[in-house]
Amino acid sequence: MLTREGCPTNALAIKDALEALEGKWKLLILFALSSGPKRFKELSKAVGSITDKTLSAELKRLEMNKLIKRDVHDTFPPTVEYSITPHGMSLENVMDALHFWGLAHRKKIMKD
Amino acid sequence: MLTREGCPTNALAIKDALEALEGKWKLLILFALSSGPKRFKELSKAVGSITDKTLSAELKRLEMNKLIKRDVHDTFPPTVEYSITPHGMSLENVMDALHFWGLAHRKKIMKD
Repeated sequence: MLTREGCPTNALAIKDALEALEGKWKLLILFALSSGPKRFKELSKAVGSITDKTLSAELKRLEMNKLIKRDVHDTFPPTVEYSITPHGMSLENVMDALHFWGLAHRKKIMKD
Repeated sequence: MLTREGCPTNALAIKDALEALEGKWKLLILFALSSGPKRFKELSKAVGSITDKTLSAELKRLEMNKLIKRDVHDTFPPTVEYSITPHGMSLENVMDALHFWGLAHRKKIMKD
């Protein structure tokens, strides 16, 4: 796409994607949920070094963008679980591309 | 990759990539440079709604990560041009994936 010369439609779609995924946490949260539903504390541990306040805000944004869903189970006391939606799973190609580029980037920065 | 269960190596590479690209500007700057080298003011216009201070800081980070280079031309007065490096161009797959996901995301959010 980089070779297709910076046309505005492409930039708009990239902007949309970046807005839904902005910050350093959202993709990591989705990545953690990709291996199965998790409760808040499990998720916090899986993501690592995120504060409860930030995690909570990020989860709300992800839910708003239909990337995850929040299920309240009728237990006593009630339990809450977060899971990734099919729309969230559709980020697989983005995650794959980021993963492979991340590996290449690390090599490049280490080598030079 | 999402189906490969959240293994730590994958998360690390994604973290590396997200750190190099964090914020909403870097990919848009790279996208703007993908159509050819630009001077600071041209770049500012192409990216849109970015302040000079932020653009300047983002360019420094991108240069540090070897994604762009800054060339000073021996004119009078000297002129500075920014261009994307081959390493920056290697983000093509990431940009493509973000572009297509961004289109799907817009449809999804509009529809529901």
